[in-house]
Amino acid sequence: MAKDKKLVEAITSMDVDFAQWYTDVVKKAELCDYASVKGCMVIKPAGYAIWENIQAELDRRFKETGVQNVYMPLFIPESLLQKEKDHVEGFAPEVAWVTHGGLEKLQERLCVRPTSETLFCDFYAGDIHSYRDLPKVYNQWCSVVRWEKTTRPFLRSREFLWQEGHTAHATAEEAEARTIQMLNVYADFCEQVLAIPVVKGQKTDKEKFAGAEATYTIESLMHDGKALQSGTSHNFGDGFAKAFGIQYAAKDNTLQYVHQTSWGMTTRMIGAIIMVHGDDNGLVLPPRIAPVQVMIVPVQQQKEGVLDKAYELRDALSGFKVKVDDSDKSPGWKFSESEMRGIPVRVEIGPRDIENNQAVLVRRDTHEKMTVSLNEIGAKVGELLETIQHDMLDKARSHRDAHTYVARDFDEFVKTINEKPGFVKAMWCGCQECEDKIKEVTAATSRCMPFEQEQLSDKCVCCGKPAKKMVYWGRAY
Amino acid sequence: MAKDKKLVEAITSMDVDFAQWYTDVVKKAELCDYASVKGCMVIKPAGYAIWENIQAELDRRFKETGVQNVYMPLFIPESLLQKEKDHVEGFAPEVAWVTHGGLEKLQERLCVRPTSETLFCDFYAGDIHSYRDLPKVYNQWCSVVRWEKTTRPFLRSREFLWQEGHTAHATAEEAEARTIQMLNVYADFCEQVLAIPVVKGQKTDKEKFAGAEATYTIESLMHDGKALQSGTSHNFGDGFAKAFGIQYAAKDNTLQYVHQTSWGMTTRMIGAIIMVHGDDNGLVLPPRIAPVQVMIVPVQQQKEGVLDKAYELRDALSGFKVKVDDSDKSPGWKFSESEMRGIPVRVEIGPRDIENNQAVLVRRDTHEKMTVSLNEIGAKVGELLETIQHDMLDKARSHRDAHTYVARDFDEFVKTINEKPGFVKAMWCGCQECEDKIKEVTAATSRCMPFEQEQLSDKCVCCGKPAKKMVYWGRAY
Repeated sequence: MAKDKKLVEAITSMDVDFAQWYTDVVKKAELCDYASVKGCMVIKPAGYAIWENIQAELDRRFKETGVQNVYMPLFIPESLLQKEKDHVEGFAPEVAWVTHGGLEKLQERLCVRPTSETLFCDFYAGDIHSYRDLPKVYNQWCSVVRWEKTTRPFLRSREFLWQEGHTAHATAEEAEARTIQMLNVYADFCEQVLAIPVVKGQKTDKEKFAGAEATYTIESLMHDGKALQSGTSHNFGDGFAKAFGIQYAAKDNTLQYVHQTSWGMTTRMIGAIIMVHGDDNGLVLPPRIAPVQVMIVPVQQQKEGVLDKAYELRDALSGFKVKVDDSDKSPGWKFSESEMRGIPVRVEIGPRDIENNQAVLVRRDTHEKMTVSLNEIGAKVGELLETIQHDMLDKARSHRDAHTYVARDFDEFVKTINEKPGFVKAMWCGCQECEDKIKEVTAATSRCMPFEQEQLSDKCVCCGKPAKKMVYWGRAY
Repeated sequence: MAKDKKLVEAITSMDVDFAQWYTDVVKKAELCDYASVKGCMVIKPAGYAIWENIQAELDRRFKETGVQNVYMPLFIPESLLQKEKDHVEGFAPEVAWVTHGGLEKLQERLCVRPTSETLFCDFYAGDIHSYRDLPKVYNQWCSVVRWEKTTRPFLRSREFLWQEGHTAHATAEEAEARTIQMLNVYADFCEQVLAIPVVKGQKTDKEKFAGAEATYTIESLMHDGKALQSGTSHNFGDGFAKAFGIQYAAKDNTLQYVHQTSWGMTTRMIGAIIMVHGDDNGLVLPPRIAPVQVMIVPVQQQKEGVLDKAYELRDALSGFKVKVDDSDKSPGWKFSESEMRGIPVRVEIGPRDIENNQAVLVRRDTHEKMTVSLNEIGAKVGELLETIQHDMLDKARSHRDAHTYVARDFDEFVKTINEKPGFVKAMWCGCQECEDKIKEVTAATSRCMPFEQEQLSDKCVCCGKPAKKMVYWGRAY
């Protein structure tokens, strides 16, 4: 049975124009659509179902570490946003302002939250009194707004969905431990569920979050060699606590400031899944995040017994997320559609298969076909989904490693960045001037100072002065 | 072991001041707090956990009927809000307006969604082409904003959380069937999960949703005899479709307008749980919605073996949502706290109980105590939770029925409303003048025209003209 080419031809090849390929996949896999509000998305059922799975997996992992969910208001009074100096400088230029409620002008402008540090701090200042009230380990699932100039679906939009965790601790050590713990939750989630390998490390001062003492990040590499910041975890020390007056009575009855953290992951991860795993036939979803893991496509379904057998097969595979495509479209069209939507395993079954008590399994990631007996199809599908999950991570890791380069001097750095899309590992003196120069000349930014440091040379790749850190550099989304 | 009275004394008796009792319970049970933004709430862990359970139960029921979740933008351009005349008149006076994005003034004002009919319509107009695209049965979980003048936690706030379902159908019949189907989902959820009995019916034209052809509602009665609109389901006919141009090519190739519905339930239901089931000791949660169903309180926990036995018991009860209160507070304080938080069953276990291989179970709803053998405690707790769930619904239904009155003429109506808080059933001619007069004189509104009609008399309770419908009237939140 030949595949229908129409759907596939509707998307640009990724080698021809990666950006257009991305947009085509988002549209043809029906993940999201632009809304009539510039820069805002309509997340459609196929996209939102992925987000629901991301939420369920992360939320379970959060709760295992003692996180409690709460909900803070959508609005931040201007005076509250201004309490922490670095924070307001970072966010004020890109927030949306509410000036009128109903027919009346507000006495004070309210911004639509771009992030909720200030709201959590305001709440903690009233809610924390004693060491018995600590730690507070709260999280919320919500949408936030940042008035971006240029937008792309999932990757950068004026409104996006995320979770933001905000914690308060008695000691600096406990805050640092929580910051790292949540970064590890993100890294583990990305690798084990999304099959996306990440580099864990710390942001430079230039790239850290507005108001943070330290920002940790996981960085991933997209198929086109561009980097994507995939999750961040911030240690605020007691900076916000001092700005907002969040103090507790310690066991020795002295008044102490709390130490705080925040950490977030967003719908941008749907963009990462597309750009790490997708191919010219569309989306490719890792089985552990796929809303539909197995699509059964009956062949010659008008023939007696074929549809019944397909439904019987669905019941036999009910341990997985399984569907039967019993629409009146052609099998070829159904094959293409299930590929476009990234469904990990397709099961083809027709009259001849039924006669031979077998079905054909097709892997979405490799297009490999295998004929299996209906007697053992449940076990085979289970194994295949595990294999696909595993192979997808391996493939993404090989791609990432094959596109990670080393540069020892500035010429080599520029040449590598310009000719070989990917990460460049290079030594750095620690000065922002060198970061600025590298960005100006190459459009690459420091992605992170990885936890796993290597001594590539003694000198800064930019200025030649003594090096302090190895840094991952790259052009980023 | 005497109960600690401090916590209980901290709340006003409901018979003394019901409104103050409500506010005290919200605060002492740590459900929510006011935020520094007037009229907005911080939903705290104990409150948000109830909302998560409401979400999980409703979402499962929705999906069983074919609902798919999506996400629409937070903002609505002013021109979009204005497309349906009745709708804009209903909502424009109470929306929050965004006028600036970052440092720039917007060309067109955006309102923060008070509800998303206009956004779904705008999307459907571009997404629906053929009868093959129908029905669309979408829902979203989000927050909405309505600029209320007077606010109360959960019941009426400027921002609240809800779900809003929006569907599009080929025929009027299908839309009507979906409207009723979702009303029934709400009614079943309220009764089976929240143990809140409801009256199902239709809103009068005066009380229906802005832009709807028909609004159906479930109405419940709070402990103080006030009514609460607990969920609504609207049939829009093709009014929005015509305003937004949502047409599809039918099988016969003619262009037809779709028929639409919407339906919503909100965080206000947390207020309903408090006001239907609560008592002077605090919150009382139905077991099926309680984040913690069983609280184990060790007595004389400093004695050897007591805490170990409590943890052992927790493991034995792991089929339920169970916790051990092993804090260093006194048992009396723990008893009061677990009552304040509404936990359905408390298990007390001390050295003498252990000696006798028993524990004491205490029902939150009736305060009844019973001693049970540790050998059968799992089965006993399971039965008790079922009994409590069942008894709470019965009790609420008896209260509702005992506070539902009949009035046959205007004097009787006024006297009943003024002297007996509750629902008043009375006949109505169908004219808005009578509704207006009743509201002016008694502050009662028509809650609904119940599906189960009774012929109480032939005449309108207000004007004496021929009656068309029996109506439930009441003062409402």
